[in-house]
Amino acid sequence: MHRPAFASWLSQTNDVTQTFLAAGRIPGLINLAGGLPDPSVWPVAALAEQARSAVADHPGDTLAYSPIDGLPGLRDVIARRFSRGGLRLTRENVMITTGGMQALDLVGKVLLDPGDAIAAQAPAYLGALDAWMPRAPAYRPMRLEANDVDIAGCMAGAKFAYTVPNFSNPTGRLVGHDQRRALVDAANATGCWLVEDDPYGALYYDGAPLPRLLDISAGDRPDSSQEGLYDGPVIYLGTLSKELAPGLRIGWVIAAPEMITALTTAKQGSDMFTSGICQRIAQGALEDRLPEQILPDILSLYRDRRDALCAAMAEHLPDLYDWEVPSGGMFVWAVARDARLDTDRLMTRGLDHGVCISPSSVFDPEGRDRRATRLNFTLNPPDKLAEGIRRLAEATRAEMAAL
Amino acid sequence: MHRPAFASWLSQTNDVTQTFLAAGRIPGLINLAGGLPDPSVWPVAALAEQARSAVADHPGDTLAYSPIDGLPGLRDVIARRFSRGGLRLTRENVMITTGGMQALDLVGKVLLDPGDAIAAQAPAYLGALDAWMPRAPAYRPMRLEANDVDIAGCMAGAKFAYTVPNFSNPTGRLVGHDQRRALVDAANATGCWLVEDDPYGALYYDGAPLPRLLDISAGDRPDSSQEGLYDGPVIYLGTLSKELAPGLRIGWVIAAPEMITALTTAKQGSDMFTSGICQRIAQGALEDRLPEQILPDILSLYRDRRDALCAAMAEHLPDLYDWEVPSGGMFVWAVARDARLDTDRLMTRGLDHGVCISPSSVFDPEGRDRRATRLNFTLNPPDKLAEGIRRLAEATRAEMAAL
Repeated sequence: MHRPAFASWLSQTNDVTQTFLAAGRIPGLINLAGGLPDPSVWPVAALAEQARSAVADHPGDTLAYSPIDGLPGLRDVIARRFSRGGLRLTRENVMITTGGMQALDLVGKVLLDPGDAIAAQAPAYLGALDAWMPRAPAYRPMRLEANDVDIAGCMAGAKFAYTVPNFSNPTGRLVGHDQRRALVDAANATGCWLVEDDPYGALYYDGAPLPRLLDISAGDRPDSSQEGLYDGPVIYLGTLSKELAPGLRIGWVIAAPEMITALTTAKQGSDMFTSGICQRIAQGALEDRLPEQILPDILSLYRDRRDALCAAMAEHLPDLYDWEVPSGGMFVWAVARDARLDTDRLMTRGLDHGVCISPSSVFDPEGRDRRATRLNFTLNPPDKLAEGIRRLAEATRAEMAAL
Repeated sequence: MHRPAFASWLSQTNDVTQTFLAAGRIPGLINLAGGLPDPSVWPVAALAEQARSAVADHPGDTLAYSPIDGLPGLRDVIARRFSRGGLRLTRENVMITTGGMQALDLVGKVLLDPGDAIAAQAPAYLGALDAWMPRAPAYRPMRLEANDVDIAGCMAGAKFAYTVPNFSNPTGRLVGHDQRRALVDAANATGCWLVEDDPYGALYYDGAPLPRLLDISAGDRPDSSQEGLYDGPVIYLGTLSKELAPGLRIGWVIAAPEMITALTTAKQGSDMFTSGICQRIAQGALEDRLPEQILPDILSLYRDRRDALCAAMAEHLPDLYDWEVPSGGMFVWAVARDARLDTDRLMTRGLDHGVCISPSSVFDPEGRDRRATRLNFTLNPPDKLAEGIRRLAEATRAEMAAL
C-alpha cells in the first residue's frame, strides 16, 4: 500500500536517540549520556500522600477539565515564589506547562513562521532543537564564551534568543553577570524576546546564585505600565523535573501577559490543559516547601558526584580532552584535544567498551560539531563514574588509533 | 517597545473561546455550550487510592523520566482491550498521549507540510481545527449525511481523513455501517490515512455499538505481514476523558507501527512523555475495570438528560429549529429553519437571556456556517436543561425579531 509521505522535518531527525534507547538494553553499560536525576532524591512518601490528597480532597481541581493556563492556585504559588526585588508577578504572568519541554514547543508555535530566526546560545539543548525542528527555523549561534560575541547583532531581527544561563545543557557553563546584563540590554535594544530556560537554577554547588535574566530585566522597569506587572522581554521557563521529580511533568512560563495569552492559545490546541492531578500535587508540594526540604541532600549528592567524575577525568583524560569543572548543573563538556576525533563515531565505539556518551553533533542545529562530548554525573555513584571515565579513555584511545 | 510579530496563525483565532470563558462568570447562566461531563460520575475514592498507590508502589514508573511512547504496562492493557476478532494488537501498535487533544496535534505534526490537505467530516470538532491551525492545512469537507458524498474523491491526494464515527462532535450523528465500510474502502483505495477519533465510543444510549473503523480495517487484512500486527490505514484515537475523568489527561493512539514510530518522534519534541503518575493511575483503573464499573451509571444519567433536553426542545423549539435525537454522545445539533438566523449573534444575545450555546461557525474551517448550534446535555440536570431551552427559544425569537 502506498501511503502519503510524512512531513518533511521527520526525514531530518538523527538516530542518536535510537542509539541511546538501544544502549539501555546493553548489560553492564555505564550511561554517561543522559541527564537523569538519581531516584534516591525523590520524597516518595510525601508525594504519594500529596497524590492521594489531590484527588480525594480536590476532585474539582484534579478530575475535571481545568483552565488552559493552569490552576489559579498553582499559578499564584509560582508568582509568589519568583516575586522579589523589582520583580512583581501575579498569575497573569504565569502559565503551567506539561513539563519544561512543552514550553519550548509552545514558544516556537507562537513565534515562528517558516524562515524565522532564533539567536541560540551555542551549543544548544537538544530538546529545544527537537521542539523547533518542525518549524524549520534559521539559527544564529551565540558563542557566549567567545570574547568577541556580538549579542545584539545576533538578536537583531530574530524572533527570540534562547539561553540556559545556569549551567547550560550541554556545556555546564554558567553565564556570568556581565553577559546576563548584556543579554537583557540586547533584548531591550532590539525588541527580541529573550528565552531564559532554567531547569538547573537550583543546582549551584559552589557559590551563591547569580540574578536571573528575569530579575535583571525587572530591575530595568520600575515604572512598568500594567500596575507594576512584569511586561519585559524575558520568557522564563521553569520546571520541577530537577528539583522534585520529572514524572510530575510540571513546568511553567513566566512572561509578559501578552505572551502568556498567546502561549495559552497555543496550548489549547496542543494538549488543552496539564493534568489537574499533577498540578495539585505540585501546588501542595510547593506550599509545603518540599523542593526546599530536599535541596540540601540533592546538592550534597550531586556535588560529590561532580567531584568524583572530575577526579576520574583528571586521572584518565588530561592528554585527550580539555574541560572546565562546572560549578553546578548536571554535565561536564569535554572537548577533544585532537580535532580529528569524531564523537559520533566515539559514541558507537564507546558502546563496545561499555560506556555511553552524548556526541556534540546533537547539540548543533547543523549537526557539524563532532569534537566534544557531554558527560553526566548525577545518575551514577562515584565508583561507576570512575569506571565509566576509564572506559571512555580506553574507547577514545582506540578511536584515535583507528584514525 | 516594538516586539517581533507573533506567528501568522495566531491572528486567525476567533474570540468564541474568550466569550465562553467570560460567560462562565455570569451568575445564573445555563451553559449548554461546553462538552463537560457531570462530576457525579467520577469514582473519586477509587482514583485517590490509585493515585496514592501509583506513587508509593511504583515510584520508578511515576516519578522518573519514562518512555516517550508510554509505560509498557499501560500500552499492553490498551492493546488487550482493543484486540478482538481480526484485530491483533501489541504495544508496538499503541502510544500514550497527553489527552486526546495531543494525538490530534501529533497527527498534524507528522503528516502536514504547508498546503497539505485534510478530508474532514463536516462539520468538524473545534479542537481538531485548533490543533491543525498552526499548519494552515487545506480542508476538503466530507458531508457524510449527503446522499451524493464522494468519499474517495475527497480523500484522494489528502494526507489523512478525519472522522468521529460515534456521535460526532458537534452533530451527535452516528455514522452508519455502510458508510464506515465506505470510509475504510476509500482509505484502502487511495492510500490516505484514516483518523478515527472516538471519545464518545462508550456512550451508546439506545443500541449496540457499531464496529469501529479500526475493526473493519483489521478484517480486511487477515494475512497482514508483521506477524499479524495491525498495519492498516486507520489511526484510532481513544481517551479516558469521557469514560473516567478528563483531569487524568490520558489518551492513546492505535495505529500501524510505522505511524506509532513517527508520532513518538513528534511527541519527544512536544512534551517528552506523559506523566507517569497519570499513566499508572490509568493502568490501575483499567486493570481494575473501573470504566466498565461506572459505565452503567453514566449511561443512565446521560440518557435521561438527553431525553430531558429533547423533550424541552420538542416543547419550545419545533417552529425554530430542526434536529435529530442522537442515540449517544453528548450533543444535539439544532439547525435553524430560517436561513437568516446567525448563531454567532445568537450566542451573544443568549448571554443576555442567561443561556450559552456553541455557534456552528466554530466547527467550520472557513467559519462560514452560521445557521446551527450545538447543545450539550451531559453537564446540567433535567430542570436546568429545560430552563436553558426555554431561554434559547426566547433568545432566538428576539434575534429573529431583530432581523
